[in-house]
Amino acid sequence: MYRPQIKVLDCTIRDGGLINNHNFDHKFVKAVYKAVSDSGVDYIELGYKNSKELFSPEEYGYWKFCDDEEIAKIKEGIESDIKVSVMVDVGRVNLDDVKPASESPVDMIRTATDVKDIDKAIYMANHFYDKGYEATLNIMAISRDRGPELTDALEQIQKESKVIAVYIVDSFGALYQEPVEELVTRYRKILKGKEVGFHGHNNQQLAFGNTIEAIIHGANFLDATVYGIGRAAGNCPLELLVGFLKNPKFDIRPILDLISKEFIPLREQIEWGYIIPYAISGMMGEHPRAAMALRKGDKKENYREFYESLTNTGLD
Amino acid sequence: MYRPQIKVLDCTIRDGGLINNHNFDHKFVKAVYKAVSDSGVDYIELGYKNSKELFSPEEYGYWKFCDDEEIAKIKEGIESDIKVSVMVDVGRVNLDDVKPASESPVDMIRTATDVKDIDKAIYMANHFYDKGYEATLNIMAISRDRGPELTDALEQIQKESKVIAVYIVDSFGALYQEPVEELVTRYRKILKGKEVGFHGHNNQQLAFGNTIEAIIHGANFLDATVYGIGRAAGNCPLELLVGFLKNPKFDIRPILDLISKEFIPLREQIEWGYIIPYAISGMMGEHPRAAMALRKGDKKENYREFYESLTNTGLD
Repeated sequence: MYRPQIKVLDCTIRDGGLINNHNFDHKFVKAVYKAVSDSGVDYIELGYKNSKELFSPEEYGYWKFCDDEEIAKIKEGIESDIKVSVMVDVGRVNLDDVKPASESPVDMIRTATDVKDIDKAIYMANHFYDKGYEATLNIMAISRDRGPELTDALEQIQKESKVIAVYIVDSFGALYQEPVEELVTRYRKILKGKEVGFHGHNNQQLAFGNTIEAIIHGANFLDATVYGIGRAAGNCPLELLVGFLKNPKFDIRPILDLISKEFIPLREQIEWGYIIPYAISGMMGEHPRAAMALRKGDKKENYREFYESLTNTGLD
Repeated sequence: MYRPQIKVLDCTIRDGGLINNHNFDHKFVKAVYKAVSDSGVDYIELGYKNSKELFSPEEYGYWKFCDDEEIAKIKEGIESDIKVSVMVDVGRVNLDDVKPASESPVDMIRTATDVKDIDKAIYMANHFYDKGYEATLNIMAISRDRGPELTDALEQIQKESKVIAVYIVDSFGALYQEPVEELVTRYRKILKGKEVGFHGHNNQQLAFGNTIEAIIHGANFLDATVYGIGRAAGNCPLELLVGFLKNPKFDIRPILDLISKEFIPLREQIEWGYIIPYAISGMMGEHPRAAMALRKGDKKENYREFYESLTNTGLD
């Protein structure tokens, strides 16, 4: 698949940080930044821009806050054209903390939102756009909010927002190909002049397949992470996506080296990937938080009981 | 997805046996047989029927030969309607070893073949059919043999063969969704009155997604294995497929228990799944044998060198 409009965003440090409270050290982040740059990927996302009034820097690592000076330290001494992205959640960022883009090492700010918070998210994303950033809207938990409320939100985005792309975020790893096709098609029909993005979660081993499905139907902004790292089951593996995309600008080899040297040892320390309670969460369309809690306890391999705890509570 | 014609075949013991020379003990095989039966799956495949003149019973376990009396021991004492399948490779079975179906605990024999051996395979499959078995043809390494030679083979099958189903076997884990769609559509166009089957390999985490793709386009015979066990990267995980198929006859819980009790410990002893050299083989459309050899040596995490060994040899 070679479509020059396709942009790949590596969110290894951002989504991977959800496993370890964003506690990657600068040496590791620099290694990822360098390898991902060398592989020809378009964007790298390093974390969240959260207010330090809401979250304590004693409890969380640098990449929960993404201060400009820390990002500058990562970039220092590495030749790279890659653009840097950070994510913000609605209601968790102090807009005054965000300097104009001309004074920041950040190129893009992605605003994560539920469908119900779309008003606030549009306001925030426009604010970032007006400060000179590339801005996107990332609609989370899409498998739950696919009805007319999503269509309304997309129409409002089309009317009021200046973002370059709007993402489908399968937060629960619940989507199969047909819903992906339907969503990409609906997004593209409503959003004229904006790109459609896709961010998959790998609960059911479908993050890569669903990303291909999104590409087939016209999505051009694609998220992936090295070795699929990310919260719970993780994300679309960057190495598979780069292997699939035929644009000669991509080079898989730096990513292969990075996995050999950094991610095989890291996977011994922190857990992500195909793990049955996350698969069950995906099948059920549930947030992985119950499965994540299970994995920290002594019943972590008790899959039947976990399955029944999700199914026996009734629907009333 | 609920289509009553869909038949699920569990090939845990057969494809898993390719990792350990078919050395599963009877206790383990009985546990799989019972759980898979209880989950409502239609068929279970226990191994290969190979000639003992070609392979030594000292070197290989029972499931390389699938003697009727060993299969009978597995079934003994377990209430089950599941049908038992065995696989044969062209040229590796002595047809005289196969008793009439009425005297055997086996219900189905699947003949695995390359496109070039289709004459022999049709002869063999008809022979099994005439002895009273359900018979199928499984066309291996399909990603390599997709040209007019495949169309010819399918036309010959349609004309000469009595099989109930013909499988697409993505031996190298090389197919993406669009080729799966094309193949299922071509099979269905040519094969009137026969079902289309799909057997995926999981090198690129696409075995489940491609199985869904095959279902969407009309394939009804689907292979899967518990926890995705199988040679190299393994297969489509049965638990995901059963979670996807909405036929109320399926029950995922016995499979969840089986994974908890048997497959989590087993995975500590033998290796399968998402492993980068297998992913690279899949991207390249190569047989996994070079990657399997790599994983047995001391350079098993040297991915770049392995990648370059496959790409730098030239195409002349």
